[in-house]
Amino acid sequence: MTVTIIGTGLIGCSLANRLKETGFAKKIIGLDNKPQNIQTALSLGWIDESLDLDEAIKQSELIVIAIPVDATLQLLPGLLSKLDKQVLMDVGSTKEIICRSVINNIKRGRFVATHPMWGTEKNGPEAVVKDAFEGRVAVICDKDKTDADALQLIEKLYKAIGMQLVYMESGVHDVHAAYVSHISHIASYALSLTVLEKEKEEDAIFELASGGFESTVRLAKSNPAMWVPILMQNKENVLDVLNEHIVQLRKIKSCLEKDNFTYLQELMENANKIKRILK
Amino acid sequence: MTVTIIGTGLIGCSLANRLKETGFAKKIIGLDNKPQNIQTALSLGWIDESLDLDEAIKQSELIVIAIPVDATLQLLPGLLSKLDKQVLMDVGSTKEIICRSVINNIKRGRFVATHPMWGTEKNGPEAVVKDAFEGRVAVICDKDKTDADALQLIEKLYKAIGMQLVYMESGVHDVHAAYVSHISHIASYALSLTVLEKEKEEDAIFELASGGFESTVRLAKSNPAMWVPILMQNKENVLDVLNEHIVQLRKIKSCLEKDNFTYLQELMENANKIKRILK
Repeated sequence: MTVTIIGTGLIGCSLANRLKETGFAKKIIGLDNKPQNIQTALSLGWIDESLDLDEAIKQSELIVIAIPVDATLQLLPGLLSKLDKQVLMDVGSTKEIICRSVINNIKRGRFVATHPMWGTEKNGPEAVVKDAFEGRVAVICDKDKTDADALQLIEKLYKAIGMQLVYMESGVHDVHAAYVSHISHIASYALSLTVLEKEKEEDAIFELASGGFESTVRLAKSNPAMWVPILMQNKENVLDVLNEHIVQLRKIKSCLEKDNFTYLQELMENANKIKRILK
Repeated sequence: MTVTIIGTGLIGCSLANRLKETGFAKKIIGLDNKPQNIQTALSLGWIDESLDLDEAIKQSELIVIAIPVDATLQLLPGLLSKLDKQVLMDVGSTKEIICRSVINNIKRGRFVATHPMWGTEKNGPEAVVKDAFEGRVAVICDKDKTDADALQLIEKLYKAIGMQLVYMESGVHDVHAAYVSHISHIASYALSLTVLEKEKEEDAIFELASGGFESTVRLAKSNPAMWVPILMQNKENVLDVLNEHIVQLRKIKSCLEKDNFTYLQELMENANKIKRILK
């Protein structure tokens, strides 16, 4: 089948690659408002051609939106209205506002709201990862709002690229996403700012940074153009988790200030329980 | 040469393995106050035998202390006084208090205070990593307090296992260690506590946790018996950095509360600058 991917960045092109590789798509049409991204995606072979949007829709059975969530919100309602029998899917990190924006759209049934839980801190078509998505979870939201054939197509797509499916109400998705993804990015951005603020000797960071620092600060390299809109759209949930995170840091701070090492030990032992969940 | 390693955990045994592999040591004597660790280290071949401390000292040219920093502080002065010509080295994550504890010791020259910047969140002799230490930095502190031959031996050791040497005053080491290592552990422990507190649905964490969450929370699996004493000994520096970290998180929080997405973007772009230092 022919698939149009709107947004030829890391996610769009990594998906394009897997869809071709697995035989799910025969042809990929790529669109991007950055001509440079199109050019790179073409030259690296991630997409077969670029067309204008109307022509791309006409030629495709499936259209994938893989752009920042603020741009998705602007594009989605109008794009959905233009569809005939095509299926439209997004891959954004927030789901509630996106789903709400098309709730009364006459073509709502052609839209499948999804969030494949995969990514890296890099961006752009040159950052494509070959075995992207494999073994990770893809969340499909508000599936009862979607036509049966559209849902089936997207289920088939995610299974083809090796993902496990989880179904969730879009509001519930955003709560969980705040806990297991968005707060990690905030913590990592803040850690980077802390170290850059306090450690003026960049040579010392470079020389002394151990693997532990590298892994906690990795997400701080992520693209603000992608992450500002995510945090903005999921503001209430994110603030709730962020407040809790500051409370937990204050507890550790208080232990150190009061030499309460028994309680510090207890806090760390509690934190160790994450081992039960993540091996 | 014969090397005694006190503490047959992750660091001690990973070092034992590399010293044998590179031919630096011909025989490794291992000591540990946990009989189980000795037994495992023997059965996995990380150490050749276990002796009582006095006998081990007598047979060795080099003794390595690889135990939690609170235990190091208790053991070091007495152990150093017992030495004849042997060299004694520690590998702990704090350096100032350790060095201060032996400043007037008659055998001070035989001691080399070091911190190889390598580790994982695991512990125990079963967690040994084969290419441990390779390509990382080893810090040697207060080298002017050390006899020339002792210093040379330790420099040779670290070079043999593929580490780059950096020299630092012990107090300066502790400031940098707070920035590039200790705060990462605190952030990660606090992130784990946050998510465990807020996210009661463990299945959701397990299913939805993406690579980003896994990498930021990895250090929260670290052993409290090792980390409480480190934070305790480096309390002043750690509190200084922790306060700054809370300030940075509050800035992000305030941006979200006030819908100040321009400043949020600016903060994230600043955080991105860590890319200049860490590729």
